[in-house]
Amino acid sequence: MRESYHESLNSVVEDLVKMTEKVQTAVRLSTKALLDADLTVAEQVISDDLALDAQHDDLEVRCFSLLARQAPVAGELRTVVAAMRMVADLARMGDLAAHIAKIARLRYPERAVPEGLVPNFTLMARVAEEMVETAGRSLRERNAHDAARLADSDEEMDELRKGQFRVLMGKDWPYSVESAVDVALLGRYYERIADHAVIMASRVIYVVTGNHPEGENWTIA
Amino acid sequence: MRESYHESLNSVVEDLVKMTEKVQTAVRLSTKALLDADLTVAEQVISDDLALDAQHDDLEVRCFSLLARQAPVAGELRTVVAAMRMVADLARMGDLAAHIAKIARLRYPERAVPEGLVPNFTLMARVAEEMVETAGRSLRERNAHDAARLADSDEEMDELRKGQFRVLMGKDWPYSVESAVDVALLGRYYERIADHAVIMASRVIYVVTGNHPEGENWTIA
Repeated sequence: MRESYHESLNSVVEDLVKMTEKVQTAVRLSTKALLDADLTVAEQVISDDLALDAQHDDLEVRCFSLLARQAPVAGELRTVVAAMRMVADLARMGDLAAHIAKIARLRYPERAVPEGLVPNFTLMARVAEEMVETAGRSLRERNAHDAARLADSDEEMDELRKGQFRVLMGKDWPYSVESAVDVALLGRYYERIADHAVIMASRVIYVVTGNHPEGENWTIA
Repeated sequence: MRESYHESLNSVVEDLVKMTEKVQTAVRLSTKALLDADLTVAEQVISDDLALDAQHDDLEVRCFSLLARQAPVAGELRTVVAAMRMVADLARMGDLAAHIAKIARLRYPERAVPEGLVPNFTLMARVAEEMVETAGRSLRERNAHDAARLADSDEEMDELRKGQFRVLMGKDWPYSVESAVDVALLGRYYERIADHAVIMASRVIYVVTGNHPEGENWTIA
């Protein structure tokens, strides 16, 4: 019985790692949909999000069942509790990728991001995708050191977002109001994906070390 | 021992109700800061958010301790798990109110919301605040019926947000690009506060009935 309990717990963590890979793909494809104005890819991200939501529900039930039937303690309890939270973070990141894809779809055949901001969004999307990847790898390898590096990437994301605002708020915004609104919301979505990757990393640190990381770069929700 | 366990669980729920009241105040005051361009109130919301974050940390530790020391089952396990999630929703709603206050502070002494959108934001803020109140009351009274009504309020919020976009995306937006960006983000923050109130209500339904509500108005994260 203990054996099967450990198997159940390990398979929850393995499936979280797989879900992180799917979220990483969703972020990558939503960026492709956005920057290439690719309607087919946008539709794919939006419909794939339903599978992520289903995976969320499945993992949540399995975590609850582990709590109810096994009453884990210490490190195992930390793992189950952290898993319940990580699955919510991952579902949310998937939703945000779908939001990006929906803006791409709304503006098709135009590209929602104006020419002058393509380099900024290209970088922002790359940082966000790498952060999701690092969060997933740190979970797979139980590597608190890798997880801790995510706070630095988040500062890079903040700088990119500030750069975006400088362009948006400058006196000579050369594009439409509609474009400005799209850029503001798209920037927000990438920023939130990055935030959730940092939160996920903080949960990995908690599972591995038993402590919550401290400092202003670590957010709670 | 069982007695003190029940007391601990009840006090967690009572403190969640109190935290919901504080979040409701934060939403109300952030709206006042925004629509009256009141810097003092904006600063208050921003500093009060630190207290909400501390309350989040405290409640999270107490929930974890209940799981670790008492190994609750059935309805009590549902309550502890739901409480862990609700406290995260509440902390997030507090962050969003602080985001609203920060935009009010950034534009002071100007008002961030342009004249023509004041009626829309007044309504949006009222709906958001009422939704937070209803979520808190349904938790205090374990009232799944009241909680279920929140899905309707959320539709009202969606309509208000659509109205905002119609003004923003119209050909004759009479204000600055900066104002358009502020309106887009502020609208997003109120919408997310409403989303979290709906999610919180769905957790109340889960605690009371043992079932997750179904249907497209109920979101998971």
